[in-house]
Amino acid sequence: MSTHELAGVAAGSGKAPLIDGLQYANWSEKIFRQMREGGVDAVHVTITYHENFRETVLNIERWNRWFEQFPELIMQGRTAGDIALARKTGRTAIFFGSQNPSCMEDDIGLVEILHTLGLRFMQLTYNNQSLLASGCYEAVDSGITRMGREVIAEMNRVGLVIDMSHSGERSTLEAIELSARPVAITHANPASWHAAGRNKSDAVLQALASTGGMLGFSLYPHHLQHGSACTLQGYCDMICRTAELMSPDCIGIGSDLCQDQPDSVVEWMRTGRWTKSIDFGEGSASEPGFPDMPDWFSDNRHFGQIASGLKNAGMSDSDIAGVMGGNWQRFYAESFTSTEGYPTEQGIPGIQQRQQQ
Amino acid sequence: MSTHELAGVAAGSGKAPLIDGLQYANWSEKIFRQMREGGVDAVHVTITYHENFRETVLNIERWNRWFEQFPELIMQGRTAGDIALARKTGRTAIFFGSQNPSCMEDDIGLVEILHTLGLRFMQLTYNNQSLLASGCYEAVDSGITRMGREVIAEMNRVGLVIDMSHSGERSTLEAIELSARPVAITHANPASWHAAGRNKSDAVLQALASTGGMLGFSLYPHHLQHGSACTLQGYCDMICRTAELMSPDCIGIGSDLCQDQPDSVVEWMRTGRWTKSIDFGEGSASEPGFPDMPDWFSDNRHFGQIASGLKNAGMSDSDIAGVMGGNWQRFYAESFTSTEGYPTEQGIPGIQQRQQQ
Repeated sequence: MSTHELAGVAAGSGKAPLIDGLQYANWSEKIFRQMREGGVDAVHVTITYHENFRETVLNIERWNRWFEQFPELIMQGRTAGDIALARKTGRTAIFFGSQNPSCMEDDIGLVEILHTLGLRFMQLTYNNQSLLASGCYEAVDSGITRMGREVIAEMNRVGLVIDMSHSGERSTLEAIELSARPVAITHANPASWHAAGRNKSDAVLQALASTGGMLGFSLYPHHLQHGSACTLQGYCDMICRTAELMSPDCIGIGSDLCQDQPDSVVEWMRTGRWTKSIDFGEGSASEPGFPDMPDWFSDNRHFGQIASGLKNAGMSDSDIAGVMGGNWQRFYAESFTSTEGYPTEQGIPGIQQRQQQ
Repeated sequence: MSTHELAGVAAGSGKAPLIDGLQYANWSEKIFRQMREGGVDAVHVTITYHENFRETVLNIERWNRWFEQFPELIMQGRTAGDIALARKTGRTAIFFGSQNPSCMEDDIGLVEILHTLGLRFMQLTYNNQSLLASGCYEAVDSGITRMGREVIAEMNRVGLVIDMSHSGERSTLEAIELSARPVAITHANPASWHAAGRNKSDAVLQALASTGGMLGFSLYPHHLQHGSACTLQGYCDMICRTAELMSPDCIGIGSDLCQDQPDSVVEWMRTGRWTKSIDFGEGSASEPGFPDMPDWFSDNRHFGQIASGLKNAGMSDSDIAGVMGGNWQRFYAESFTSTEGYPTEQGIPGIQQRQQQ
């Protein structure tokens, strides 16, 4: 199978969809067109970090204008079925996510409101302590808070995925245990491959896999062995090893692509409004901005390279199809709807559940 | 046909649904149960007056808790199809509306956001001048504003009904003319029957009817001839005369039922935050609170009385079925979806529309 054909398998001409588990680009028509060129069927996009609810709504309003302006390129994704719809109509389905719970403020009622507005992923923490859990850069990880337990149950109820990409080890393990539905780590890599604060221990990855959760492999250089110089082969070999550790069915891509963003944005991501000083996060005083992407992946047209790299690394075609999107599609299908279910003519699932309890 | 059978026709045992075009009760399990007893299939409920966006969202959160708490009595209505679903599952469909545009603040992007959250009606004004139009109690009605024209087009696009119940004559006529989709006056009566500032001229009613709009007849005593002493016969005769003026197909009930509300609520409705003084609105210093309802209609169990009264007033069974809900159902079916249409496998309506322009 040629590289081109492999890219085709992953990029929408075959049965498996091509799905990226996380991007936060400086969105533009150029990038939406690159998604189409790359055959990307669906992307989980970060719409908010430290923004409060009203500011997050303003960000959704901006997406609504893009949906109105480019209906031939993108559409909002709300259910897994929208991925198939996007493919059939030649567009990319955009699923919303938040990298911090700032958008829900201190109000559990906003969980359902945000879900109604299309939010499908929410991190319980960014790098710091939140009202819900501890971030991966806190000195002490005190686990899931009182409110965190309530919010996990509410996220489970409405179908909003718990994303622990930026959380601490204890908080992540507790969230996996407390959540009644599978949890996601949308963008991170194994710490055993590259020991960064944001990468995950084997214990976390195994707990995630054993509960049906998903890991999206990051392409953000600070998460990569050798950073921007990471090779395609090194990255793909790491994926193959992680498939053995976790299972080939619970891994995908979560590129963390921050295309065309100015460095002011990474400063906002890291500092928000929690400090008046500078915090370099994964960067440093000498390297404060966005790092350069690896030369084999810099935009949405390059997912075929990864499919090809996985083939060279010895992964089977069916496992490659899963990694490139099939696994995310299954996870989306299991995750985005209410456990109570929207009432149908067949009955009211919520009532039945309650009566059985 | 007996009174009981007539009530049955209107109350859900026949083909026509029973729909109330506006209520603003102090909601409780008691009232939800009365809706079921009365066979009310759908109600347009006011969820906000002077509240800003965030406060309106808090009100929706409160409704979400009621939907979660009483799934066997009520469900949120989003499309006309939800009325049939509510009937089949023995519940009342609740459709959200706002009596003032405060909820969209000065941000046209909130029109789509509020629609996504379920808002299906929005008045362009309460009694005062708004950013969009003039209210019925302003000395000067300057018509639809610059922003008002933009918001009307946006409401038309997303499927949010323009409700002119509390607007001035000129603003109302202009809204009817400017709107590409039918407009509603959800709760008012003809001024020719009772000359109140809130009731509507024959010119307005005829313009409404000629464009496929809907009038909901109010049962709020300040809108009734002889106020709380209005007779059922007087009310039903008025409906029959208005059917001749407008057509029997564009009229329904909009009870304006404010059941169990304390008088502090009518003060909030009238004064909001626009004055530090008291404004009595339709009331007076001697009668500042909610007026007593007519003895033949005080809660959701009494719609059968109106159906019966219309029969006695000589209205045909099919016209009665229309007035009691069939006409609202048709209007809901025409009004609540986007003109661009959600993309389907058959294509993307928005693109086709644009290309034709």
